Amino acid sequence: MSEFLNGCRAIVGAANVLTDAADLERYLTDWRRRYTGKALAVVRPADTNEVATIVRLCNQHRVPLVPQGGNTGLVLGSVPDESGNAIVLSLSRMNRIRDTDTINNTMTVEAGCILEQVQNAAAEAGRLFPLSLAAEGSCTIGGNLATNAGGTAVLRYGNARDLCLGLEVVTAQGEVWSGLRGLRKDNTGYDLRNLFIGAEGTLGVITAAVLKLYPQPKAQLTALAAMQSPQDALRLLSIAQERCGATLTGFELMSDFCLRLVTKHFSQMRLPFPQSYPQYVLMELSDSESENHANDMLEGLVTEALEQGIIEDAAIASSIAQSKALWNLREHIPLAQAEEGKNIKHDVSVPISRIGEFIAVTDVQLAQAFPGCRMVTFGHLGDGNLHYNVSPPENASPDAFIASQRDINRVVHDSVHSFGGSISAEHGLGALKREEVRAYKSEVELGLMRTLKQALDPLNIMNPGKVL
Amino acid sequence: MSEFLNGCRAIVGAANVLTDAADLERYLTDWRRRYTGKALAVVRPADTNEVATIVRLCNQHRVPLVPQGGNTGLVLGSVPDESGNAIVLSLSRMNRIRDTDTINNTMTVEAGCILEQVQNAAAEAGRLFPLSLAAEGSCTIGGNLATNAGGTAVLRYGNARDLCLGLEVVTAQGEVWSGLRGLRKDNTGYDLRNLFIGAEGTLGVITAAVLKLYPQPKAQLTALAAMQSPQDALRLLSIAQERCGATLTGFELMSDFCLRLVTKHFSQMRLPFPQSYPQYVLMELSDSESENHANDMLEGLVTEALEQGIIEDAAIASSIAQSKALWNLREHIPLAQAEEGKNIKHDVSVPISRIGEFIAVTDVQLAQAFPGCRMVTFGHLGDGNLHYNVSPPENASPDAFIASQRDINRVVHDSVHSFGGSISAEHGLGALKREEVRAYKSEVELGLMRTLKQALDPLNIMNPGKVL
Repeated sequence: MSEFLNGCRAIVGAANVLTDAADLERYLTDWRRRYTGKALAVVRPADTNEVATIVRLCNQHRVPLVPQGGNTGLVLGSVPDESGNAIVLSLSRMNRIRDTDTINNTMTVEAGCILEQVQNAAAEAGRLFPLSLAAEGSCTIGGNLATNAGGTAVLRYGNARDLCLGLEVVTAQGEVWSGLRGLRKDNTGYDLRNLFIGAEGTLGVITAAVLKLYPQPKAQLTALAAMQSPQDALRLLSIAQERCGATLTGFELMSDFCLRLVTKHFSQMRLPFPQSYPQYVLMELSDSESENHANDMLEGLVTEALEQGIIEDAAIASSIAQSKALWNLREHIPLAQAEEGKNIKHDVSVPISRIGEFIAVTDVQLAQAFPGCRMVTFGHLGDGNLHYNVSPPENASPDAFIASQRDINRVVHDSVHSFGGSISAEHGLGALKREEVRAYKSEVELGLMRTLKQALDPLNIMNPGKVL
Repeated sequence: MSEFLNGCRAIVGAANVLTDAADLERYLTDWRRRYTGKALAVVRPADTNEVATIVRLCNQHRVPLVPQGGNTGLVLGSVPDESGNAIVLSLSRMNRIRDTDTINNTMTVEAGCILEQVQNAAAEAGRLFPLSLAAEGSCTIGGNLATNAGGTAVLRYGNARDLCLGLEVVTAQGEVWSGLRGLRKDNTGYDLRNLFIGAEGTLGVITAAVLKLYPQPKAQLTALAAMQSPQDALRLLSIAQERCGATLTGFELMSDFCLRLVTKHFSQMRLPFPQSYPQYVLMELSDSESENHANDMLEGLVTEALEQGIIEDAAIASSIAQSKALWNLREHIPLAQAEEGKNIKHDVSVPISRIGEFIAVTDVQLAQAFPGCRMVTFGHLGDGNLHYNVSPPENASPDAFIASQRDINRVVHDSVHSFGGSISAEHGLGALKREEVRAYKSEVELGLMRTLKQALDPLNIMNPGKVL
């Protein structure tokens, strides 16, 4: 392997081929610190040509490679396995914004740009890049595209794939596909872009992308509404979409238990209501006109929902600080659940119309199989996406509960499947869910996926052991 | 072949295997009546299972098949070649709407549903299915998806692929992939859906789809604005997007010459201005609030554009009849150009920011190479998509001009390519443009496309000779 590593050094420079254990640690350990893999080296190319040359060298030596951006993935997609045969190909040095076009509303960026850097560059150009998620200060746009990231603005702007017009990709053979087109319409052949997006680096390495920009909203307004059930939340969603159209940019469901955990573990946080209710929805409007207009719209919506008995109470944020406080409640749920102790997470989606039934049925099934388990159910209701997390019974041993993870996953995922849902709504499959998904995909679908993998990466050197 | 045809009859019934020349004619001739192919038969399955069984029979007998919906394509994608070896697989009997879910905002339809039927079914459910194009009374949703159709609402709602959440596909091997998921988020493997969408039936047969629905707008308002240049039209687009956000659903550019042809050949049609201007834009707002709100928004936009000197005049439709009259001007351009005589059409896109420069440069190049040729330039400016059509010089022989079609295409497409554009924005490649595109795509991209075709359809029986 020294010939291979010397080859890498000749391509990217010795300083960018890391082999010391201490240097490697952060590249080999996953974001949730549950797993550490092994690697021959971490290789950090400076540009697309270096990526292509490294991939060709990997072909010659049959060395697998694991593309990595910010290494913030939640399904072990960006860390190598324990064989130690692979290199980690870090795109972090490729972080230039190549072009911004405010008339075409596009920005061409390299894969290693941090998401926050892209958001800020768009804002400086007077535009919005709407992709937004918890890891935005660390994750890279290349990783966002490789995993088709979701986040809190999907309701209005779609997933990462919907925010990308063109790609530059290094293929498994080390060729460069220059597909950096900034076009809204292009029907000249197969949709290569969407094939590489969401493939988690198993078909090629995304090195750059043309992203869509939007006008910045004139005002953003937030409200918290309280209601009896997820079904009521769905009724609210329907009238909110009817009244507000594309102005509705956020619609997050949170159960009472979620927010009780937040106020328990973060004592400075409070709900804006004198009493508690079974469910809450955080709504956000992004208005292209004015704050007054947004406020009128939100008040009209809340008034109708109260009159129809859909919601019990509502608080509209009257300042940016209040709005942040409402979003903080939502964003502190995973932190509060972690403070409460170990737990089991699910990132699932079902058709929006079936969410209420899904929650009711699955809650009962879990309560029967694991008496006393506590559901921490929240998520992007407007997208049909729930983080349907489970904490152990109050006085039970967390470790014994975590040991039943497979059984708990099975109950939840079987239920998701019976409702026509997905066992990974926004996190991908990685190494963590690739076995699990086989129980739910047809042989025809798995066969098509294998055929594509075999055709595009016959040597199986692109992120092996992930997705398939 | 009689064994094969008897096999077909056993599967779909003798009445649905057409072999009489008179019966076949409309399936073999393209929409613009420029080409007639040959076929063994037209086979009309009733359901997905029959499609799959027919495809397996085609595999056994090595008989190619040409999937066909409404046969309204413009690039010879849905008619067979002249070999007479293939069958036409007509999906027209598969026209059931399987399911409508107004909470999930989805509708599950079979491939043979006419687009207008889908629009109407959505409207009856109180929802909008926004795909809209000239052939909507004849084209099928299966064809729309196979060609990733565009149309007049792309600016707000995207192309056909953006309006589809799930697919059912019969593979080249005659297996059924059941991917009819109604999910906004699903990251469990490769994006098979987008691979089949836009592949023009060369990778598999789309038999059903889950479509996205939207709330119906409360009001739609239309205005015609007059200006000096395409650059001014772009400035108007920028402020319209800034002020109106997603309420702006249409933005169509038309040159003065386009509208002079319309008023010449359709004498009842008039422009709402006392004088003529070099360029016009038709704008449409679709408002989720009220007609008053839409009117205020449109008036505010027009006032600002007049004050800034971007536009010279504007007329806001004050009734549905006036609005229809404005859209009629736009929709009669291709008809008026046909009345004027034979012409050469292009369906191109460039980055929106470069449209003005593209038109200016290409107009000059064409005028130099083909003195006196008359540009009929109009299209979906908000999408960067122009129908950049060319009519012969006023007193020239149309046939001599049409004989130079290849040279004219070359000038236009070379220019499109130099601006980073696409030579087929919304019509696809079919048999008509598959040679032409080779001049503009890299070997890497063509190689990836061939690899996918070879992997998914190794016998090359799915719509051979199209796309690749």
